[in-house]
Amino acid sequence: MLSSHIPATQVLAHWAATVPNQWGESTLRTAEHSLEDTIAAMVAGAGDPVCASVRAGLRATGPVPVVGSSTGTCAAFSALANGTAAHARELDEMFLVAGGHFGCAVIPAILAQAHEMDATLDAVLDALIVGSEVMARVGMAMDRAHVEKGWHGTQTIGVIAAAVACGRLLELDAARMTHALSLAVSMAAGPKVQFGTDAKPVHAGLAAQGGVLAASLAASGVTGSDKALEGPHGFGALYAGDSAADWQSVAAVNDGPLAIDSHGLSFKLYPNCASTHRCLDALQALATEHRFGMEDVERVETLVGRVNLVNLKYPEPRDPREAMFSMPYAVATMLRYGTVTLADFTPKAVQDDVTRRLMPRVEMRLASTRVETATQLLPHTTAVTLKDGRHLERVVHHAKGSFLNPFSALERQVKFEQCTKGILPEERLAPLRDNLARPQGVKVRQLLALLQFEAQIDDGTRFGRLPGAIEFSPCSGRAINP
Amino acid sequence: MLSSHIPATQVLAHWAATVPNQWGESTLRTAEHSLEDTIAAMVAGAGDPVCASVRAGLRATGPVPVVGSSTGTCAAFSALANGTAAHARELDEMFLVAGGHFGCAVIPAILAQAHEMDATLDAVLDALIVGSEVMARVGMAMDRAHVEKGWHGTQTIGVIAAAVACGRLLELDAARMTHALSLAVSMAAGPKVQFGTDAKPVHAGLAAQGGVLAASLAASGVTGSDKALEGPHGFGALYAGDSAADWQSVAAVNDGPLAIDSHGLSFKLYPNCASTHRCLDALQALATEHRFGMEDVERVETLVGRVNLVNLKYPEPRDPREAMFSMPYAVATMLRYGTVTLADFTPKAVQDDVTRRLMPRVEMRLASTRVETATQLLPHTTAVTLKDGRHLERVVHHAKGSFLNPFSALERQVKFEQCTKGILPEERLAPLRDNLARPQGVKVRQLLALLQFEAQIDDGTRFGRLPGAIEFSPCSGRAINP
Repeated sequence: MLSSHIPATQVLAHWAATVPNQWGESTLRTAEHSLEDTIAAMVAGAGDPVCASVRAGLRATGPVPVVGSSTGTCAAFSALANGTAAHARELDEMFLVAGGHFGCAVIPAILAQAHEMDATLDAVLDALIVGSEVMARVGMAMDRAHVEKGWHGTQTIGVIAAAVACGRLLELDAARMTHALSLAVSMAAGPKVQFGTDAKPVHAGLAAQGGVLAASLAASGVTGSDKALEGPHGFGALYAGDSAADWQSVAAVNDGPLAIDSHGLSFKLYPNCASTHRCLDALQALATEHRFGMEDVERVETLVGRVNLVNLKYPEPRDPREAMFSMPYAVATMLRYGTVTLADFTPKAVQDDVTRRLMPRVEMRLASTRVETATQLLPHTTAVTLKDGRHLERVVHHAKGSFLNPFSALERQVKFEQCTKGILPEERLAPLRDNLARPQGVKVRQLLALLQFEAQIDDGTRFGRLPGAIEFSPCSGRAINP
Repeated sequence: MLSSHIPATQVLAHWAATVPNQWGESTLRTAEHSLEDTIAAMVAGAGDPVCASVRAGLRATGPVPVVGSSTGTCAAFSALANGTAAHARELDEMFLVAGGHFGCAVIPAILAQAHEMDATLDAVLDALIVGSEVMARVGMAMDRAHVEKGWHGTQTIGVIAAAVACGRLLELDAARMTHALSLAVSMAAGPKVQFGTDAKPVHAGLAAQGGVLAASLAASGVTGSDKALEGPHGFGALYAGDSAADWQSVAAVNDGPLAIDSHGLSFKLYPNCASTHRCLDALQALATEHRFGMEDVERVETLVGRVNLVNLKYPEPRDPREAMFSMPYAVATMLRYGTVTLADFTPKAVQDDVTRRLMPRVEMRLASTRVETATQLLPHTTAVTLKDGRHLERVVHHAKGSFLNPFSALERQVKFEQCTKGILPEERLAPLRDNLARPQGVKVRQLLALLQFEAQIDDGTRFGRLPGAIEFSPCSGRAINP
């Protein structure tokens, strides 16, 4: 605990309140991708049963849109509903250095806030960038102790980022920004016991809701401790477990590139827990190269990090939500179809006999006892033993879609289409694509109006294994399943 | 960790959903006292600047009243505002076995919920009793590790109790009650770093708000882990520190008396942190018996428990909120005036030279290295060294107002009057007293309508040291300040 003299709460808040809105081109492009990816995930998620329940449970009416509904609510509850939708199908990006998902926690908050203020997407992108840096700095300070312990960083750290991002839109000064951040610390919850249940996507919504609320309370004069992160009995002490948070990294906020430029966001190819993705990529590549199918496989061993073991807690999932957090289910699905898509997380798919017979062939173990840090994750290893005796192995550091292994333009486009097509009619989709491609000067109210529709509640079945689905995966995987 | 096989989450929820609404007379009387005390604290608190800021920060309008305002909002935000008001002046009761305040976290939630349903106070009292038992059971399971670590049980455990209490009003079945409880676990936050700031009373409001929301989401079908309390990476694991929670006590929920009958609520005589109250009582009694005044005192030593040391973190408070968490300020005030009242927590009072000159004479230390449990607290010792060489000492186990040392009928009445008089006009106060004295059949809407007024924002100065103030204290203390 080198850092007790560094006022991390104030350093971050001061930076967030005062950094000029002058971002480089590549920073803005990443922010735009994050916005597009989150909105696509919201549209795909709005029909999830949990979102229908959340919408039914909101008892406030108001002018702020709820994606998938033709009626609105107040800003905070819009953030709750839309955050849940963005996370409901596990399609939204990971922010690895921050220890959680970024877009689903922060973007619904700033969209709701911006809607209320009648702001443009330019202001949204600025707030998004500021929020991402705060999330990364807090995430790096807390490091792996936080998420290994069992906290869901999407909510715990996401609410802090969402509050600061909303505060940025509200143009809070440094003092009030400090209080917005501090009040968000008083709303930071979310235990990983909820992984595999409805509550997990609701965590993203709660982060977004808390962000709107914390910024709003701070704007109207409510104060909190100006050492909420680093003070005794503060966020670091209570949420980092036995290892105290290292706030040095926070103090360096003015130095060096932004975290989304240096570490990037990891956009997701597969709609399940990102902890499986490096193994899925490896398996797909091995199967394509070595031309084996599911019947050829004796055993698949996956070696992952400690946090991934915590996250993937369902060796024998009973339903789609549990299946999203199951390595055997993910691997068996990849073995069977050559990719993993939204169609694989329906109740029927999860109970499918063929897939379930493959699952006992899959093992998961700790890759190494080496300590991971937020910026240095362990690579994952996938080892396949074939029935003919061959042993194939592949190490993957960076999943497809991540910063060092980004989507191609086509892959990005295919993901957007898969999330939105058949849900939004073409007369909505075309202007939505336009707004997202050229966000300068676009009013948030105009954008959100395109997302007001009556979502059909579905259990995922509507995302059938369409011909298009195969394109979602860069390698078709047809070799796996000849 | 004896208890991993006991499904505490489900045991509690099942009990809360199914226990008959047939409570004994003394249980009902305690519930009525809790309701009355919380409403008095809300009225006194509604004028606190933090409450004005919270009201200004609520952006949803709706039909549910906000105490101290003539306009309403949605149920969740009404709970937020009213919970903050109930806790703003530190007047509301402590639930020692639960490790937090009960009324301010739970009652604003059930009043908001009941208002929306147009329920009567009979249903409110039933929900209150159920919520109190859940709060006590969770608090006892978590024990002192939770609050010693730095969690503010009022919010962390309060939100769980508030959710279950709202679920009781909504008549959730056992399964949905489990999810209400579980979703509340996903909203459990509140670090003690906020003690002495605005955020501390807001914690009570957040607990109440979360309770309304969790119950509402569960009622509309959102689910969470049915092992949210005891599961891996659940509430016990994350919030009890190194000592795992003992869920055995939870499983015994069907046995024995209710916690409010066997351990009781501790109603507060003084408007500051309850951690000072045993020492204040001791000092008042010593001064009355031995007839010394503030000029006679050389030194006051106070010996308290470990949690109290955590709570009382301001040896030199700068403002009224910090002063509420300062043993030297509390003791100096008692030495000077013979009691501690609302008039002592104004900015002017806190800066008063005479009081501040007394403060360096006060010390605070750990009473004993013996381990405290939720049901066995250490007694506090107050030792006074007088300038004439006399050494006086008094050990107090139970503060005035607590279960084993309850208020007289007069003291209770004086507290209510002090909190409400001059704020609510007599034509409101008379029916309010009537409703609280004879709650059977009273509509919550009728009760809350009496509390809709435009609160004058004040810094505490309106609570002048009135002649009546002296009666607030059973011993006038005039001997102290002759």
